[in-house]
Amino acid sequence: MSEHYDVAIIGAGVSGVYSAWQLKKNFPGKRIAVFEGSDRVGGRLLSVKAPDVNNMVAELGGMRILDATRQPLVHALLDEINQFASLPDPIETYHFPVDTPANIAYLRDVRLRLSDYQDNPHAVPYNYSPDAFGKTPGALVIEAFDKIVPGITAIDLTEQQRREMAMNTEFNGKMLYEQGFWNVLQVVMSSEDYSYCRDAGGYNSTLSNWNAADAIPWFLTDFGDGVEYLGFKQGFQSVPLALARELQAIGGELLLGHKLNSFEQVNGVFSLNFTSELAITAYNDIQCTATHIVLAMPRRSIDLLEQNCPVLQQPEVKALTGTVTPRPLFKLFTTYASPWWVDQSGIREGRSVTDMPVRQTYYWPTNEGGPALQGPAILMASYDDGVNVGFWDGYRQKRGLAWKQQLEVLPLPEHKAFTGRLLKQQNVDPQWEAHQAPESMMTEVTRQVNLMHDVSAAEVTPTLPLQAAFRDWGDDPFGGGWNSWNIGVQSDDVANNIVQPLANTHLYICGEAYSHSQGWVEGALQTAHLMLAKLEVQLKA
Amino acid sequence: MSEHYDVAIIGAGVSGVYSAWQLKKNFPGKRIAVFEGSDRVGGRLLSVKAPDVNNMVAELGGMRILDATRQPLVHALLDEINQFASLPDPIETYHFPVDTPANIAYLRDVRLRLSDYQDNPHAVPYNYSPDAFGKTPGALVIEAFDKIVPGITAIDLTEQQRREMAMNTEFNGKMLYEQGFWNVLQVVMSSEDYSYCRDAGGYNSTLSNWNAADAIPWFLTDFGDGVEYLGFKQGFQSVPLALARELQAIGGELLLGHKLNSFEQVNGVFSLNFTSELAITAYNDIQCTATHIVLAMPRRSIDLLEQNCPVLQQPEVKALTGTVTPRPLFKLFTTYASPWWVDQSGIREGRSVTDMPVRQTYYWPTNEGGPALQGPAILMASYDDGVNVGFWDGYRQKRGLAWKQQLEVLPLPEHKAFTGRLLKQQNVDPQWEAHQAPESMMTEVTRQVNLMHDVSAAEVTPTLPLQAAFRDWGDDPFGGGWNSWNIGVQSDDVANNIVQPLANTHLYICGEAYSHSQGWVEGALQTAHLMLAKLEVQLKA
Repeated sequence: MSEHYDVAIIGAGVSGVYSAWQLKKNFPGKRIAVFEGSDRVGGRLLSVKAPDVNNMVAELGGMRILDATRQPLVHALLDEINQFASLPDPIETYHFPVDTPANIAYLRDVRLRLSDYQDNPHAVPYNYSPDAFGKTPGALVIEAFDKIVPGITAIDLTEQQRREMAMNTEFNGKMLYEQGFWNVLQVVMSSEDYSYCRDAGGYNSTLSNWNAADAIPWFLTDFGDGVEYLGFKQGFQSVPLALARELQAIGGELLLGHKLNSFEQVNGVFSLNFTSELAITAYNDIQCTATHIVLAMPRRSIDLLEQNCPVLQQPEVKALTGTVTPRPLFKLFTTYASPWWVDQSGIREGRSVTDMPVRQTYYWPTNEGGPALQGPAILMASYDDGVNVGFWDGYRQKRGLAWKQQLEVLPLPEHKAFTGRLLKQQNVDPQWEAHQAPESMMTEVTRQVNLMHDVSAAEVTPTLPLQAAFRDWGDDPFGGGWNSWNIGVQSDDVANNIVQPLANTHLYICGEAYSHSQGWVEGALQTAHLMLAKLEVQLKA
Repeated sequence: MSEHYDVAIIGAGVSGVYSAWQLKKNFPGKRIAVFEGSDRVGGRLLSVKAPDVNNMVAELGGMRILDATRQPLVHALLDEINQFASLPDPIETYHFPVDTPANIAYLRDVRLRLSDYQDNPHAVPYNYSPDAFGKTPGALVIEAFDKIVPGITAIDLTEQQRREMAMNTEFNGKMLYEQGFWNVLQVVMSSEDYSYCRDAGGYNSTLSNWNAADAIPWFLTDFGDGVEYLGFKQGFQSVPLALARELQAIGGELLLGHKLNSFEQVNGVFSLNFTSELAITAYNDIQCTATHIVLAMPRRSIDLLEQNCPVLQQPEVKALTGTVTPRPLFKLFTTYASPWWVDQSGIREGRSVTDMPVRQTYYWPTNEGGPALQGPAILMASYDDGVNVGFWDGYRQKRGLAWKQQLEVLPLPEHKAFTGRLLKQQNVDPQWEAHQAPESMMTEVTRQVNLMHDVSAAEVTPTLPLQAAFRDWGDDPFGGGWNSWNIGVQSDDVANNIVQPLANTHLYICGEAYSHSQGWVEGALQTAHLMLAKLEVQLKA
């Protein structure tokens, strides 16, 4: 059973399958394999078909990219993928709307439209400073950045230039990278201005206390003229799936259901130990060896391995892996017989926000990128983070249990599931079914969504959800939907060093977590490129 | 070097030294020892003298108890301690004030007095429901409880009766203990009512999503007529210190600087391995054996041990130890040349609250329990929890590093410390010095305290702090200032079972974490009593 690989890549997320495909393409004679603990390719990209809704794909994980100027790597990759002989259908994107003037802001139990931030500022229930009056939360945050790093919001700067500015800035007598983002914001904006930006912005963790020198350019990535968000007609997961298919087409290997338990180095060769589903009920331990090992995974996955892997316990490695913090993200999708928000609230697309735990509700676009105006439709009823994830914890099973049992998601006891109804019976996507929401969670989600949209008890029928599915990316093995650089870290150095943390050891690490586009596929590709540059030198030698 | 003990108790917090003293008293012929990883007795009770302030004791840890009706065990213990021949001075308490009408509520950048909640509700910057109008946050929470567990706020119920009611209540079709506290509150109060109660209440974690059936009676403990808080004239740490002294006086042993690394059971006897400071710079490993071992420690300390202790890895044990969540608490004390808040704000005593990260500011009482009206004085400038602890993280060194180095607190680099000034040079309490606050933290604390108290830049001189010390109980080995029962746990069962988690193994666990007075010394004593009842049967056998 003991096979030998030139490169064993652990994790079939984007950074893993992308790296494997690149290596196999450039070194066709080498034996390259991707080992994945779950039964699917994609990692935190998870696109599922909702029952009864044929013209949309629910993105339980990552859902969008930015335009080619801001995210060149992912756009270049899409161009390459679309040349694959193995590709069944071309990968196409659509314009993904976010904030539109008609979207609701339900804040502090006051119902506004986004247009009210500027048109009706007296109604905005924040006691913000005179400077903030009439400004959107986005504009207010940008102004704060300019007070912290003067000039950083100049429209003609590249992202690289902004990062250098922020990394070299001293603020209040201390290097910015040594300071917390929340801490420096508190200096340049009032407590209420900050609350307004956090609540109306839709996220809790992005404005929290992470590395200020990384946070500011990260925030400014989607700032400026011509910024555009793009969604995927067949779902974002089609990207790693296409890479995995092409990898196999050119002779690379992909082993699903292989959960890495430990690895160690013996005489310069890695010996890897997996638990593998060889049969549905019997788990067997299998071994292999590899000359090079790539951990294409975020921090929490590395932490879960550490206990059994001496090389990961070395202080030089831990000093690098410990530089980021996983940030849970929670997504819940609901389906309806019709897009009731169009008539009920005059909303066609974009997202509404609230300070209640659902936080962000997206009116999900069709595969053509247009608003859903009739027929069965989807809401991403909740997209939330920070303390709000703890609110939804109260309705779900304990974290960390599924991974221990070699499952991606723990099945719900049948009597606790929200069964809803199907409009016409059909084959339900097993991934949708696996992510079924509990009934108690759905009762509360529906209450909050109705309150946001001013749906009274008398008229709730159209707003009754048919089906629901959720995913909390804080669960193991991911630990977070994204990762943020810790205060005090010089992230350029870490990003360069962590791809090969020990000079003479053929261990490599890549993925979104240690990148400069944290939370984006672009970040996964950045670190894969850095890692491949080092690994390819070794393979050529 | 290998000594044998009948009972080895790990941890010199209240539950540890109390248990050791009880056992030695009842079994004088047995060899009983307390092993403590740090250099001091007291655990999360840490009373320090602030420089230049002779008539007050700063409580960096636990600071108060309730009256004898509500907390009978601690009062009975004080009576016993005051009979000790070994006691240098009697332990005396004083009335500890909390909310007074003149105290400030600085919420959403609006400055109110507590009296405004009732006298001037239009000024309260929450868009709360009509029901909430003119009510204090405390009254509003109590009303919510009555909607969740009808009758539970009846004044004549005992705490035990309330706990039974809550544990047997079904709410919204589900047992209350299966539900989250935040989740059920959201059903009976509006989002703004909840925000008002959380912000004005001063704490974030107490209203968060812990076990609702435990949270409600826990909250009601200090509810009703005649409730009184009591502080300690010599500091609360004098209680465990008196117990430790008496333990030694009657022949029990106390070994400080003994950090337990691992223990295992061999032929029914425990073998314990400690790192011990035998000399200042050299750490030696020492062993001993024991027939019975008592872990008198909270969950995080047990988790830190687990990796090296096979018995703690057993599923039956982990199912018990994993039932609570450690909750960080942060305290920062500042000293001043005079109690400027008396003239500046007309405040003599109690606490002010804000939604800014300092959250609660206590005007510290003198040892006589009266307000400080002249001369050097102390503020507990910040007492906070939840996400706010993350705010202060930005100014301090990384968590978990001190414990790894066998230190209680990591020394600050000299150039980062807030040096302030001394009024007249004197010997500074080494514990105060060890807890020195960073200068950057003090700048921000002072800014927030000044803003709360409407101190303008022109008049800041009297409000300039002389000295400052802080403690974050989220740091290792404690993990939290208190612990909360997890959702779904039947805490009565756990509390009874965890004191001896495996029927035929002489391993015992006690402490505040698994009690029904979490966060209180009363809870430490409750679990010590439960544990001793089982252990004493074994010692008699």
